[in-house]
Amino acid sequence: MKVVVLAGGVGGAKMVDGLAALLGPESLSVIVNTGDDFEYLSLKISPDLDTVCYTLAGIANPKTGWGIEGDTWVTHQAVAEIDGPDWFHLGDKDLGTHLVRTERLAQGERLSQITRDLCAGWGVQHPVFPMSDDPVRTIVHTADGRALGFQAYFVQQGCQPAVKSFEFRGSESARPVPGALSALEGCDGVILAPSNPWVSIDPILSVPGYREILITKPVLAVSPIIGGKALKGPAAKMLQELGYRPSASAVAEHYREWLQGFVLDHQDASEFEKIQRWRIIPLVTDILMKDRQDRVRLAQEILTFGDTIFNRSQ
Amino acid sequence: MKVVVLAGGVGGAKMVDGLAALLGPESLSVIVNTGDDFEYLSLKISPDLDTVCYTLAGIANPKTGWGIEGDTWVTHQAVAEIDGPDWFHLGDKDLGTHLVRTERLAQGERLSQITRDLCAGWGVQHPVFPMSDDPVRTIVHTADGRALGFQAYFVQQGCQPAVKSFEFRGSESARPVPGALSALEGCDGVILAPSNPWVSIDPILSVPGYREILITKPVLAVSPIIGGKALKGPAAKMLQELGYRPSASAVAEHYREWLQGFVLDHQDASEFEKIQRWRIIPLVTDILMKDRQDRVRLAQEILTFGDTIFNRSQ
Repeated sequence: MKVVVLAGGVGGAKMVDGLAALLGPESLSVIVNTGDDFEYLSLKISPDLDTVCYTLAGIANPKTGWGIEGDTWVTHQAVAEIDGPDWFHLGDKDLGTHLVRTERLAQGERLSQITRDLCAGWGVQHPVFPMSDDPVRTIVHTADGRALGFQAYFVQQGCQPAVKSFEFRGSESARPVPGALSALEGCDGVILAPSNPWVSIDPILSVPGYREILITKPVLAVSPIIGGKALKGPAAKMLQELGYRPSASAVAEHYREWLQGFVLDHQDASEFEKIQRWRIIPLVTDILMKDRQDRVRLAQEILTFGDTIFNRSQ
Repeated sequence: MKVVVLAGGVGGAKMVDGLAALLGPESLSVIVNTGDDFEYLSLKISPDLDTVCYTLAGIANPKTGWGIEGDTWVTHQAVAEIDGPDWFHLGDKDLGTHLVRTERLAQGERLSQITRDLCAGWGVQHPVFPMSDDPVRTIVHTADGRALGFQAYFVQQGCQPAVKSFEFRGSESARPVPGALSALEGCDGVILAPSNPWVSIDPILSVPGYREILITKPVLAVSPIIGGKALKGPAAKMLQELGYRPSASAVAEHYREWLQGFVLDHQDASEFEKIQRWRIIPLVTDILMKDRQDRVRLAQEILTFGDTIFNRSQ
């Protein structure tokens, strides 16, 4: 079974890590959101991409989910001491990644190639693709009329502003990474990681080419909402601000036109029938990933579920 | 007495530090070589400027002369581990300086303003001016026909290639920093620090405007050569490759057309008469600066000598 995962940051990375324990590099590829990418201190930062790579490399900080385990903050403090920006936290080891990426991008190299080389250095064997080598920037339009870059909204403003809509600036002219497109074309099924639909998965789908293939494939999604709350990040708050009740089913509804399967938590079991009514097959299980064992157990359940969904649709 | 010092890196920084212990910020300004500036990992590095500022701030690494005392190397190692360049050593605290400078330059700010702000943050009260806000790049033309950026020659190649000539690329259209020009205009005398004449002092003089004022002022220089050897760096080797005998007098000769005083070491006392013949007044003393006490003692001797030179010429 060949599977492609579409993923954002921390939640997506955990699920990919579980799947990678069960599927070899030829059977599992990941396409990662780069709509969060931004420039900070003149460095090109790719937060979701790094989180997925660090997690697969086994060097991610288990406490935060992002950054590198045991990293230090010497440069961060030095920057703050000379009145530089300090709202985004870059550890000293992590900085090495950003410096090398920034320099290689400046020399005209493609993000996908740089990511491949970095992964090789970290011992990551599963293909990890940025969604595009072209810049796409997720802009959060707020209820009070501002247009904020995603990290400015997410980190600098702590998700405080109410959201009105999202824009994936540059997506209309962005091209999918060729390897990601091939992986998607050749796969048996697609898994949408438990990532934020609006700001992690939709940016990927905004790049012309992915959606066209995706709708021809069996797709299952894992809920990023448990018991009406987002495990991490502003998904639940966004749902509310966009006029929905924060719930697992609201996520399934977002994908409903082309979704075949949906994995939701026991806490949300009451939404089972609603989801079924949309002709989406629900799987109710424990989707909280507290440790590596959880990740692998959930991955196993998803793959068993996927066997049904992916074969059924063929 | 108002004094302006023209300085390169480590030797110049030590002398300026000694003078700063004796003269207030209104009496001592420094104009620093930026011909060594270069880009590394997409960061804008100003080696001489940082060495002078860190030394005046009392945070310079006393062992190396460059970098920050007690700095760590986490990012440097992380970059090396992912096959990034590692021939230039950037400490983690030091990186904060480069990141803030790079970002502010990218936003269109002037290097002189950034330097002023950084100095304020570090508690450096004496005015430190980069020679220009415009890029000037010292290119080393080697005997075997290569053109190397200064840091590539100095650090990456360890000064191995034989030099043929130097070029200060961009200098013809570079402008002096206005504050530096005013300081020079208003000073009683100029001191050339014990820095390399070809690659530390000449780049400053290559910027149109400085030399024109300098030749109207009393000028004294401190030898960067002791006993035929450079205290640091390739000055002696360069002298030989350029066809001179490495000696203190060869340095005096380089400046001879407009130099009034020259400070040389006891070890080179035999060159006293030769220098005098050029109508340059020699001062023989101990010019090795092993510790802060040496710096202040030498500064005191230079200022006493300067009193004579500067008044004599008025």
